[in-house]
Amino acid sequence: MPESSERPPVGVIGAGSFGTAIANLLAYNTDVLLYSRQPQLVAAINANRQHLGVALSPRVQATNSLEEVARNCTLLFPVVPSSNFRSMMRDLGPFLRPYHIMIHGTKGFDAPEDIVADPQIPLTRKDVSTMSEIIRQESVVLRVGCLSGPNLASEIMEGQPTATVIGSAYDEVISLGKSVLSSEHFHVFGTYDLLGAELAGALKNIIAIGSGILKGKGLGKNIQAMLITRGLTEMVYFGNAMGSSSSAFFGTAGIGDLVATATSKNSRNYTFGYRLGQGEAIADIENSMPELAEGVRTLRVARKLARYYHLRVPITDMLYKIVFEEFDIDRAISFLITYPYDVDVDFI
Amino acid sequence: MPESSERPPVGVIGAGSFGTAIANLLAYNTDVLLYSRQPQLVAAINANRQHLGVALSPRVQATNSLEEVARNCTLLFPVVPSSNFRSMMRDLGPFLRPYHIMIHGTKGFDAPEDIVADPQIPLTRKDVSTMSEIIRQESVVLRVGCLSGPNLASEIMEGQPTATVIGSAYDEVISLGKSVLSSEHFHVFGTYDLLGAELAGALKNIIAIGSGILKGKGLGKNIQAMLITRGLTEMVYFGNAMGSSSSAFFGTAGIGDLVATATSKNSRNYTFGYRLGQGEAIADIENSMPELAEGVRTLRVARKLARYYHLRVPITDMLYKIVFEEFDIDRAISFLITYPYDVDVDFI
Repeated sequence: MPESSERPPVGVIGAGSFGTAIANLLAYNTDVLLYSRQPQLVAAINANRQHLGVALSPRVQATNSLEEVARNCTLLFPVVPSSNFRSMMRDLGPFLRPYHIMIHGTKGFDAPEDIVADPQIPLTRKDVSTMSEIIRQESVVLRVGCLSGPNLASEIMEGQPTATVIGSAYDEVISLGKSVLSSEHFHVFGTYDLLGAELAGALKNIIAIGSGILKGKGLGKNIQAMLITRGLTEMVYFGNAMGSSSSAFFGTAGIGDLVATATSKNSRNYTFGYRLGQGEAIADIENSMPELAEGVRTLRVARKLARYYHLRVPITDMLYKIVFEEFDIDRAISFLITYPYDVDVDFI
Repeated sequence: MPESSERPPVGVIGAGSFGTAIANLLAYNTDVLLYSRQPQLVAAINANRQHLGVALSPRVQATNSLEEVARNCTLLFPVVPSSNFRSMMRDLGPFLRPYHIMIHGTKGFDAPEDIVADPQIPLTRKDVSTMSEIIRQESVVLRVGCLSGPNLASEIMEGQPTATVIGSAYDEVISLGKSVLSSEHFHVFGTYDLLGAELAGALKNIIAIGSGILKGKGLGKNIQAMLITRGLTEMVYFGNAMGSSSSAFFGTAGIGDLVATATSKNSRNYTFGYRLGQGEAIADIENSMPELAEGVRTLRVARKLARYYHLRVPITDMLYKIVFEEFDIDRAISFLITYPYDVDVDFI
């Protein structure tokens, strides 16, 4: 790290598009250590000073050593796919101490693959972990938080303005996160509802798939807006069942992230749905996407959670059937239009 | 009316794009009398059976007589611009009886022009009427309601599916409205929060202008989603100050309508903002738009209402300055990104 630095660097774990975007945002305020598990990528980043088509700030240094990140940084932003999150934490855990603070930016769930993959096996809340729950299960770190909001990485990397919210039970986590992330390009809100912010971030990817499907079918903004509206309602039902308040769903982590993700071609989940709506086969879509669409994974978990909590979530149900059971999209739309919804808004 | 009709026709007052779309939706279930104040237009509609580029259902009959509409129809859908609503009601009022039911589809406010046009004169709640308030001020009709939701007329006229919500204090109004409007293309929700649904419908046009401005400036989905999120928060502040609950803002009339209007090129308010963002002069935009962007009118009233209620609504303030005081758009965006918002969500 440059000796001129006034405070220790901040660590970012995961050099995918969002991790890279966060690294560049942090670099407005602090030095950054960016971890990738791929040594060649680390060497290339440090040599070329660019990654994924954008110039990296001179304050970002890449590393292949989790130990180095943990030793040099007090504040860590893990941003790896949910499917790798637990194994990453198991590798990182031995280097973590109670003074570490972790604010993750991963929008998905963790659950045992054997349960999730088999439609016959029921799943309970105990089988499912959010990323902050994994951090606490796999390390001594207590002060955890999450980042959630309309944060399409490609736009952040272009230098476009936006906002995010840090969810944490700890004022200290929120204020530290604000101090390293805030800039004139980036507004940082805080909320104590960590679980709500995590759930909103994960569940919105399901609705983004649905929104992409509608666009892929050539449909317009009215029905897309209704899907977002009713989809948000289903997200709140999940949140309330799982113990979060409703409020996170109506702010930056909820509506904000949902609207951006469910209307942008730069969203992987939206694009996955769009190609599905255009008639492509799921295997072909998955094989040709460079990064995972988290929503596909989340959809399987959410469907089982809905069963466990006895939730009426017809959009989630229909999307599951479309993605995993080849259910006809037009039939699903007709079903949803004529569905006997209880009322417009019953959650507040 | 055809003698085969099982029930009396339903009246639609106003043959603009939304009135025409509603007429065609109603025609799935009932005969329709469509009023226009332009005799030549009435003659052309009845002769050509098409209007605004779409074929009218054979069950839609146009008329130039408000008396005929009131005499033949118990249920009326007034859908005229807010600037004409009171004068229309004064013309129609003498023909209305207590048995009439009116569900309006106009998304704006009414206030005396001399107060609204002069920045120096303060405005109070008593100076402002919603459309349902005008109906009750100018007629003996008690059973009133409004239509609100993601209902871009052009998409409805193409036969695309969507949903709406009828706001009314009367179950009878909601159930009657559902019975004539519901179809496999159109889901109809109900809410008792008439004021909330009216306010959401009117205020969202302001945010749609802002969203168009961002797009016109070449900005992306992240910041657009944040504008929608924070704009919705300001809408809730207005609603709570004016006496409505928050709930309408989180359903079809709120998020639903807002997301559709604030992301669609088929929205006049969005288009107004888009052209502003592209650098066009306001007078040029207004002179070249075939129908009024209601949001421009609403913005003047909302700005004064915010003063009256002492609301912190920085987006509304900035949009007012941009539209009416030639405030620089980039400065407004910087101001909003660095604004000291209290918290992410404080309204539920």
